[in-house]
Amino acid sequence: MSPSPHSPIGVFDSGVGGLTVVRALMQRLPNEDIIYFGDTARVPYGIKSVETISHYATQITEFLLEKEVKLLIVACNTMAAVASQVIHDLSPVPVLDVIEAGTRGAIAATRNRQVGVIGTLTTINSQAYVHTIHAAAPDIGIHSRACPLFVPLVEEGWLDHEVTRLTAREYLSPLLELDIDSLVLGCTHYPLLTPLLKEVVGDSIQLIDSAETTAQQVVELFEQTGMANPDPTPGSHQFFVTDVPQRFQDVGSRFLGQPLFHVHVVNW
Amino acid sequence: MSPSPHSPIGVFDSGVGGLTVVRALMQRLPNEDIIYFGDTARVPYGIKSVETISHYATQITEFLLEKEVKLLIVACNTMAAVASQVIHDLSPVPVLDVIEAGTRGAIAATRNRQVGVIGTLTTINSQAYVHTIHAAAPDIGIHSRACPLFVPLVEEGWLDHEVTRLTAREYLSPLLELDIDSLVLGCTHYPLLTPLLKEVVGDSIQLIDSAETTAQQVVELFEQTGMANPDPTPGSHQFFVTDVPQRFQDVGSRFLGQPLFHVHVVNW
Repeated sequence: MSPSPHSPIGVFDSGVGGLTVVRALMQRLPNEDIIYFGDTARVPYGIKSVETISHYATQITEFLLEKEVKLLIVACNTMAAVASQVIHDLSPVPVLDVIEAGTRGAIAATRNRQVGVIGTLTTINSQAYVHTIHAAAPDIGIHSRACPLFVPLVEEGWLDHEVTRLTAREYLSPLLELDIDSLVLGCTHYPLLTPLLKEVVGDSIQLIDSAETTAQQVVELFEQTGMANPDPTPGSHQFFVTDVPQRFQDVGSRFLGQPLFHVHVVNW
Repeated sequence: MSPSPHSPIGVFDSGVGGLTVVRALMQRLPNEDIIYFGDTARVPYGIKSVETISHYATQITEFLLEKEVKLLIVACNTMAAVASQVIHDLSPVPVLDVIEAGTRGAIAATRNRQVGVIGTLTTINSQAYVHTIHAAAPDIGIHSRACPLFVPLVEEGWLDHEVTRLTAREYLSPLLELDIDSLVLGCTHYPLLTPLLKEVVGDSIQLIDSAETTAQQVVELFEQTGMANPDPTPGSHQFFVTDVPQRFQDVGSRFLGQPLFHVHVVNW
C-alpha cells in the first residue's frame, strides 16, 4: 500500500532530542499523525563510529517504513551527518533532515557570511554542515566546535546552572572571537539551552534552531506535494523506544513541553 | 576444556572505565594473560534499564567464557549492580565484581561507620551498595548520590578543570554534611578524578577505589585456589570492543596509563 495524505509522519532520533522537532511539528501541523522512534537503549550516537551509526539508522528506517509513513524526518544531527545517504537509498518516501534544515536557516540568517556550528563530536568531525552549507553557498565562512558536555548537561536538567554557563563559555569563546553573526545549534538537545546560550553569545549572534526550520520545510513540502492530512481532527502521536520508557517519559516531557503518552518498547 | 592456571582472566565493562581495573591487575599480577571486553558501541549503560543491561551482560559473559577464561571480573559497577546474578548463573568459573570489592574496601576503611557512595544513576538507583554493605555490616550508615556528569567530564578529559570542580562540589556537598569518613568511587571512571575529588572532600575522608581492592581480591583468590599463572614471562593483553577502536584507544590509554595495542572489533 502506498502512503497517502492520511499516513503518518515518521520522525527518528537516537534518544529524546528529536522531540524538539516533534514539538515544532505539533505546533505547525496539529492534525498530522506522528510516529516517533527514539533508540534509547543505544543512545548516545554522538561518540560512535560511522559504521555503527549507519547500521542503527538502517534498522530504524526499515521499522518506520513498515509503518507506512509518508515522510521520514531524521531528527538527529549525528545520523543526518553520517548516515543520510543510507537512509535516502532505502526510502521510497521523501526524507528531510535537521542538517538540511539548519543549513537553510543559517544561509537565510547570516549577513556577514560568517557562521558558527556546534554539535556532537561525530557531527562536527563529519564536516557535514561544512559540506551542506558550502554546496549552497561556497562563500560562507564556517567555524565549528564540538560540545560533548551539552547533551549530558541537558539530560541532567542543568539548563540554567553555573556549570553549564562556564562550560558554554569555554566551548564558545573561540567561536566568538571569529566575528560570527549566526550560530547553528547542530544537535536537537541544544534548543533547551537557548536562554543560557543567548546570554553567553550576546544579542548580535542569531541562534539557528533546526527544529523550527525543519517544521517549516515540512509545511512547504506538503504544499508542493498535496500530502498534508486533510482530516481536521487533532493528529495522534505514538512513541517507540528501545529501552524501558520511564526515563524517556521523564526527560522527554521536558523536550516536548507536555506529558508523554502512548510510549511502546521495541526489543532489539 | 577446563580452564587451567595458564588460562586468561576475563575483564569486562560497558566501555573504557574497566581499564582502571586492568591497570591495577597488570601492576599486581604482571604475568597473567588478560582479555578485556568493552561494549563501546552501546556505552554508556548507566542510564539504561535493568532488562537491557542484563541482556548485554549475558552476551559479553558468553563471549568471554568461549575464550576459556579462568576468572570473570565485572569491572562495571552498573552491570555488577543489576546483572550480577545473571552473570553468576551463567558462569562455571569464579566471578568477582567491583561492588563486592568496593564494599570490602569501605568496611575496612570506615571508623565512624558512616560511608558515602557515588556512582551512575542506575548503580545508585539499584541500591546495590546498600544491600552489599548491609549484608556484611548492617550497622553502617550509607549515604548515596548519583553523579551522572562525572563520566562525560572524564571522557572530555577535564580532570583538573573548574567545571569539574564546581560539579563535584554540587554533587558532594549534601554528602559532606553527613559526617562520612569514607567515600566509595562506585564507577570505574571516577578514579581518574581522584586528585580533584581529594581536594573537594578534604583530608578527613578516605576515597575507596574499587580497582585497587579488586586486584587485591584476585591475588587472594589465586592464593586460595592455586590458579595463579606459574609462567614467569609477562602476560599478554587483548582488548575486544564493539565499536571501531579509534576512540577506545585514545581515551583508553589515559585509563590504562600506557598505549593500548591488540584491539579487536566484535560486530554485534
